[in-house]
Amino acid sequence: MNDTFLKACRGEKVDYTPVWLMRQAGRYMKEYQEVRAKVDFLTLCKTPELAAKVSLQPIDILDVDAAILFSDILIPVEAMGMPLAFHDKKGPILGDPVRTKAGVDRLVIPDTEDSMPFVLETIRILRQELKVPLIGFSGAPWTLATYIIEGGSSKNFLHTKKMMYQNPGLFKALMEKITATVIEYLSAQIHAGAQAVQLFDSWAGILAPYDYEKIIFPHVKSAVKALKKFDVPVIYFVNDCAGLLKVVKKCGADVIGIDWRVDMAKAAKMLGKNHSIQGNLDPCVLFAPKEHIEDRVKDILFKAETARGHIFNLGHGILPETPVENAIAMVEAVHKYGRRD
Amino acid sequence: MNDTFLKACRGEKVDYTPVWLMRQAGRYMKEYQEVRAKVDFLTLCKTPELAAKVSLQPIDILDVDAAILFSDILIPVEAMGMPLAFHDKKGPILGDPVRTKAGVDRLVIPDTEDSMPFVLETIRILRQELKVPLIGFSGAPWTLATYIIEGGSSKNFLHTKKMMYQNPGLFKALMEKITATVIEYLSAQIHAGAQAVQLFDSWAGILAPYDYEKIIFPHVKSAVKALKKFDVPVIYFVNDCAGLLKVVKKCGADVIGIDWRVDMAKAAKMLGKNHSIQGNLDPCVLFAPKEHIEDRVKDILFKAETARGHIFNLGHGILPETPVENAIAMVEAVHKYGRRD
Repeated sequence: MNDTFLKACRGEKVDYTPVWLMRQAGRYMKEYQEVRAKVDFLTLCKTPELAAKVSLQPIDILDVDAAILFSDILIPVEAMGMPLAFHDKKGPILGDPVRTKAGVDRLVIPDTEDSMPFVLETIRILRQELKVPLIGFSGAPWTLATYIIEGGSSKNFLHTKKMMYQNPGLFKALMEKITATVIEYLSAQIHAGAQAVQLFDSWAGILAPYDYEKIIFPHVKSAVKALKKFDVPVIYFVNDCAGLLKVVKKCGADVIGIDWRVDMAKAAKMLGKNHSIQGNLDPCVLFAPKEHIEDRVKDILFKAETARGHIFNLGHGILPETPVENAIAMVEAVHKYGRRD
Repeated sequence: MNDTFLKACRGEKVDYTPVWLMRQAGRYMKEYQEVRAKVDFLTLCKTPELAAKVSLQPIDILDVDAAILFSDILIPVEAMGMPLAFHDKKGPILGDPVRTKAGVDRLVIPDTEDSMPFVLETIRILRQELKVPLIGFSGAPWTLATYIIEGGSSKNFLHTKKMMYQNPGLFKALMEKITATVIEYLSAQIHAGAQAVQLFDSWAGILAPYDYEKIIFPHVKSAVKALKKFDVPVIYFVNDCAGLLKVVKKCGADVIGIDWRVDMAKAAKMLGKNHSIQGNLDPCVLFAPKEHIEDRVKDILFKAETARGHIFNLGHGILPETPVENAIAMVEAVHKYGRRD
């Protein structure tokens, strides 16, 4: 068992900087496309043997130090009661967006074992196969709220912010229901065998720090606090985090995941010694020549040296167009230049 | 002549904090929609009497302290040689995106008087009518480059970053051509009567600070330096700037415009005493109850007190759905709570 990733999460001494990639199981890999050619995306998420298969693909091909459950952040939202569909061009569509008290009342806090058993079964299969730690995950409460209120992706998130400003009581009730769902969902993943959990706050960065701190962050803290009862590292990934780090550092998670739009040296300084850091190469750098990829890996490794611990990652999910050999080159560079001896 | 805006740009003493709104001439105003109902968007931009008319509308209706030329950031790109069209849903489309040396070579550095005389005529009309200062504007070089390379808006800006990483020499040649265009275009606007100029770097925030500093920022500095030869304030608006302020502060502009995703107190502290600051209310706050809008205005005014000078603005363009009475309430709140006596 390679436990370098778990040690780095906890800030323990490691021989080298561990690395994995957000969306490492995905379309940029022909082995994934072969599986996906036979089933649609949601069926893939809901078929444990297939979900486990694609979760395992990058471990051997890229030689990464952690695996992540293959799933989608909207799976628990479907289980809360919203019809979910994926369109190739438009992305996810959630039917009947929630914008009223009746809508919030209709949502349930799902029992994972009852309504998403396939997620837990995928985890059980993966734990039997893996020689690296398995990360479970969920969308963070705010990010799930944006999908629930907008009904999908959005440009300005106006419906979400309107509810937040115009009906703060209703918005809070919704956030509480989502937070309870997230806690239940990740607790079940941990019980099934997840050895770390990551909260994806993909849309945190559209908020003014004022709103993030006062309205959203209390729910982040309560989710992290509930999950810290288990003996697994909690990772909080905050996309477009540069303006939020001063608040984020109080979240209590073991690891803060950062996007590429903030300098690693600045983030390491701001986050201090209570967290390890995960990140933060621009996914587009994987389209550069290998020498340039190496230079950028070295730059980030160097800047992260002052952090309590560092898990190398991209600053966002790997892009479908990425040449797989460049992802491999990135991992090799991390392992080569991230040695601590 | 109300010169409060110009004084605040220069960091001189003012009686109150001046305010204007990005996209203050726009769809949220029925007077604008009446004009727009008769002509398409590009015709409106290119008809000086109409462009001047809509530029003037918000001055009386909102009681703002500055006017901005009504135009589009892609007007000079069309003049560089790219066919431009606006689609109601897809946004701007530039034909024949530039991704090769032949494409870069084909672009011209347009003479504004020859190829965009309507812009200069709009400015001349406005100067005769206005009792507040007139701001001219252009897209910043990087932001224009993204449109030129992508051919429109983009999700990941992959074509742009690919050129940047894979063909740095070609990318630099393109940036130099765009920068020369921006300088010529804004110089002509100043000669025609613009009393301040704003560079919109709407897509700066998609860059890693590493790339922004090394590849993009030299062009920003050279544009600002060239424009500083004239006796008008230069405003550099950087969208999603939180991770870039450490670099941005060296740009030499009189005013740094910031988006809403960074705390004003932090920005004021980081930018120091060489610049005034413009910003930074989340445009979505204009959908909140008026008491909440007031609270947020007061918060920003208070946090900006340590800045050399402050021009209140939104952190991005006003949204088309905004209730006009809320925009008026925001301006009133700035004038009421921003008094300096």
